[in-house]
Amino acid sequence: MTTICSDPEEFADDQLAGFLDLHADRLSGVTGGVVAHRTSSPRVAVVLGGGSGHYPAFHGLVGRGLATAAVVGNVFTSPSAARAWSVARAADEGRGVVFCVGRYAGDAMNFGIAVERLRREGVDARLLMVTDDVASSDVVDERRGIAGLLAVVKAMGAAAERGADVDEVERVGRAANAATRTLGVTFAGCSLPGSTGPLFTVPAGHLGLGLGIHGEPGIADVPLPAAPQLAALLVDRLLEERPSAAASAVAPVLNGLGATGDEELFLLWHEVAGRLRDAGLRLVDPAVGSFVTSLDMAGVSLSLQWLDDELERLWTADCDAPGLRRSRAATEGLRPAVAAADEADDAAVPDATDAAVALGHRVRSALAAARDVVVLHEDDLGRIDAVAGDGDHGRGMVKGARAAVSRVDAVDCRAGGAWLLTTAGRAWAAAAGGTSGVLWGAALEAAGATLTDGRDAYPSEVVVDAVDAFAEAVVDLGRAAEGDKTLLDALLPFARALRSGVAEGVELATAWAAAAVVATTAAATTAELRPRVGRARPLAEKSLGTPDAGATSMALVLTAVGTVLAGPSDPALPVTTERTPA
Amino acid sequence: MTTICSDPEEFADDQLAGFLDLHADRLSGVTGGVVAHRTSSPRVAVVLGGGSGHYPAFHGLVGRGLATAAVVGNVFTSPSAARAWSVARAADEGRGVVFCVGRYAGDAMNFGIAVERLRREGVDARLLMVTDDVASSDVVDERRGIAGLLAVVKAMGAAAERGADVDEVERVGRAANAATRTLGVTFAGCSLPGSTGPLFTVPAGHLGLGLGIHGEPGIADVPLPAAPQLAALLVDRLLEERPSAAASAVAPVLNGLGATGDEELFLLWHEVAGRLRDAGLRLVDPAVGSFVTSLDMAGVSLSLQWLDDELERLWTADCDAPGLRRSRAATEGLRPAVAAADEADDAAVPDATDAAVALGHRVRSALAAARDVVVLHEDDLGRIDAVAGDGDHGRGMVKGARAAVSRVDAVDCRAGGAWLLTTAGRAWAAAAGGTSGVLWGAALEAAGATLTDGRDAYPSEVVVDAVDAFAEAVVDLGRAAEGDKTLLDALLPFARALRSGVAEGVELATAWAAAAVVATTAAATTAELRPRVGRARPLAEKSLGTPDAGATSMALVLTAVGTVLAGPSDPALPVTTERTPA
Repeated sequence: MTTICSDPEEFADDQLAGFLDLHADRLSGVTGGVVAHRTSSPRVAVVLGGGSGHYPAFHGLVGRGLATAAVVGNVFTSPSAARAWSVARAADEGRGVVFCVGRYAGDAMNFGIAVERLRREGVDARLLMVTDDVASSDVVDERRGIAGLLAVVKAMGAAAERGADVDEVERVGRAANAATRTLGVTFAGCSLPGSTGPLFTVPAGHLGLGLGIHGEPGIADVPLPAAPQLAALLVDRLLEERPSAAASAVAPVLNGLGATGDEELFLLWHEVAGRLRDAGLRLVDPAVGSFVTSLDMAGVSLSLQWLDDELERLWTADCDAPGLRRSRAATEGLRPAVAAADEADDAAVPDATDAAVALGHRVRSALAAARDVVVLHEDDLGRIDAVAGDGDHGRGMVKGARAAVSRVDAVDCRAGGAWLLTTAGRAWAAAAGGTSGVLWGAALEAAGATLTDGRDAYPSEVVVDAVDAFAEAVVDLGRAAEGDKTLLDALLPFARALRSGVAEGVELATAWAAAAVVATTAAATTAELRPRVGRARPLAEKSLGTPDAGATSMALVLTAVGTVLAGPSDPALPVTTERTPA
Repeated sequence: MTTICSDPEEFADDQLAGFLDLHADRLSGVTGGVVAHRTSSPRVAVVLGGGSGHYPAFHGLVGRGLATAAVVGNVFTSPSAARAWSVARAADEGRGVVFCVGRYAGDAMNFGIAVERLRREGVDARLLMVTDDVASSDVVDERRGIAGLLAVVKAMGAAAERGADVDEVERVGRAANAATRTLGVTFAGCSLPGSTGPLFTVPAGHLGLGLGIHGEPGIADVPLPAAPQLAALLVDRLLEERPSAAASAVAPVLNGLGATGDEELFLLWHEVAGRLRDAGLRLVDPAVGSFVTSLDMAGVSLSLQWLDDELERLWTADCDAPGLRRSRAATEGLRPAVAAADEADDAAVPDATDAAVALGHRVRSALAAARDVVVLHEDDLGRIDAVAGDGDHGRGMVKGARAAVSRVDAVDCRAGGAWLLTTAGRAWAAAAGGTSGVLWGAALEAAGATLTDGRDAYPSEVVVDAVDAFAEAVVDLGRAAEGDKTLLDALLPFARALRSGVAEGVELATAWAAAAVVATTAAATTAELRPRVGRARPLAEKSLGTPDAGATSMALVLTAVGTVLAGPSDPALPVTTERTPA
């Protein structure tokens, strides 16, 4: 949804007012659009134009080394001939004007009329229409213009900045356009200001192939692939369109359509870059970001400009516009920092008694059981966490538990339980991060430190002490107390019940199982609590009625470990292969 | 939806790989995150950190004059202590490290552990937690950190760039944090990579007040206001939070959360800036864009940093990171372009015969009727257009017709019909832009040119010639033919039917009405056509079954004009006040 709006009819002018307020030190508003402030040497004016809704195209691409001016129309609507004329008159420094627009019927007519009027008035005006969208026609000259415009205007702006005359700027623009191809896909439609629904929808799990940048749906809906296949879809089609006699250097533009975030683009870029390099191409100054958008449309396009020496010089030249800045000087004289040595992960396993090694087998089984239970409940834990948090608790527990099990699986079978717990804790914290990761990691380390691997036996009292150390580490690090709606609300009642049961002479596995029931009940009861610490606190009221995710996962793990304790006392090395959730 | 993904578990690492590929000339990847390349003079390391999903926070804010490094965690998850340690070790140039993180439990613990370890190893490490979110607590020190982080790290990075020592960088950071306040709102929730639904939803027509940046819902849902009221909501609450003894200069950060586009932000900025200036504040280098996001969340936050002289110097200093670049040199020596004089709109009304003036009254009525009918059908026309186009046809027709009527309303009542048509055509084209605007404008001008205001009578044959001129202008400018699925498919059959009817001696109004029926039928029949020109052509198959929007509006207008012709022959000046659609 395009949400922020006053009068939908005035959206284009209203956004332009804010834009001009921000850039008053380098741009001026004129009737119909935006003109860059001038330097002392007159240049050919490169004038972009088109509808609003495409920012930073077109007014965000005005600045040194890019466009001289931009004509700004209503949302997705060609500006009128009168506006194009007005902006060109203001931009003209006496050396001529080259309009650069996407090839659309309205733009062709309006800018064509403006060119005729400017020529009648003695201004040497030209019109260059960008035709980069390979999906729009098999006939190159009949294609529409989309995000490849960035690479075309970059060439023209750089040529103008170097003092080229109007013939030369037009020639460069035509060469740049002839060398540029784009293919786009959309994941979800955009909504016009003031409207309550999208202009079109893409079926769930699909993408629209060959999007338009004016809210037009794609040409065909195809199933949405993972990033490597999406990269292949874009790259392979563009490589088929390689112009004859093209060299092996390309300027890539991976463009987000609006709602597709930069991190998604980086992720896709990694795949695209690999595939382009595998094809033997040299990638020159890739531009990855949102350059030609369609309001809040989700989607992406890939453009390739096939570079000869001239186009490469123009593409890599410095520029400075709100939507694209390049500066060679910024990276001169820099040298990479040297990475610190990572923590040694291959330290020798310390000696352990036979009892500690037997304990180690229990620890391995317990960690595997913990992992299996959080994998099984990952989605549930996420849902509980999302009520007043960010929904990542299940994922974090799975990451941590998996890392812990992987780590101990890689360790010699003579390792003691204490060392395994310590090692598992470090791996858990490092892999999971977050609040639960650091707490679980510290708690496991503390339990290991209490147990030690030098004992000849591990009676129940020692295990109880280790559980208390586990709990104390959480209290110390988390600075929370019982009743704060955290994992302590399951863990502390568990620790008390376990100590009490063992003190009464109950066998460890039985006492643990009984204490796990206490933890499960206590975790459920956290639904009645308001959070008093942590991220959920500001959302205390929303959290009422939902149990704490951390207490819930704690109770699940404690219960699962109880089943391990109830099993055979000294099994062979446990099988820690992950169970597939039912 | 966060759509582009390979393995959801690896989203954070996968996006980082692409990011590092793009910025290899200035940034290096190390275990746990990103470190800027070094210059020759060692500086205090300012190390940001937090989960992924917030780009450009945090790794996009690494660069000269901003952060030295960033620790990158999983999506919305604090990075582990091990990662924080690793990045800090790589970033440390021997002058100490100041971590800067938002105040969250996980970050406090993980970065706290890293600080302790670094100190044990002899690195002078500090931890600064940003607490700018006024909605998260009434107690300032207990607040969480959101987009105000940008202004805090800007101050610290600028201080470090100037050679400040670690005490000074920490002091500046604390002063900057104490001077910074943020309030955010969300319009729609975000979705985690790999998930199929949003973490939370906001009721339609509402906003969530006091959003979190980790996908947490807002604290309260309130009805969504228009931009001026939204600006007031943000500004007024922040002004209540003005620190005592604050000066009158502020650094504003208007931050988009992900799916909220720059044009929406500019529009809102215009309102926010006005309201801040009305409060007597001086606005220093406002930052408007997406700086601290939450995947694809829609929403916005406003931060104000209250500037003393020191903070103002730090805020305005040059910086160069992927997510924020500032350069004073870029605007030195520039001077604004001079705008061209607009077309004179107050030319004297030329003389007209009585017959031409009478015709003028008809023209005024006809234009008003055209406007009324397109206003009435604006939404329908938009829906038809959206099937294979961008859905703006209704809006464009309304804009053009309204402008035409406004223009002729402002003209002396002695104006002739020909001049009025010409004037109306210019106003229509200028206001509407787009394809239909330029065509309707040119057509009306052509009709006016054929009629002239010097005749003593306007017999039916003259009107028929004017209609032909109207149609010819469309053919000439649009370069389309009948059957191409354009407005010509209604207009040309109309013109033929009118000429034929008049030739057969039928009275004009009757012939016009009959021809309008032909046009209406012909417009409906365009549903069977595939578009052969224009923007809809690539979507030819999708367009089948839906009539052409331009042909439909043409038939509607021709029909409406017919009712005017059937009315009294010489009314008083028509009432052109717009009728409200039923």
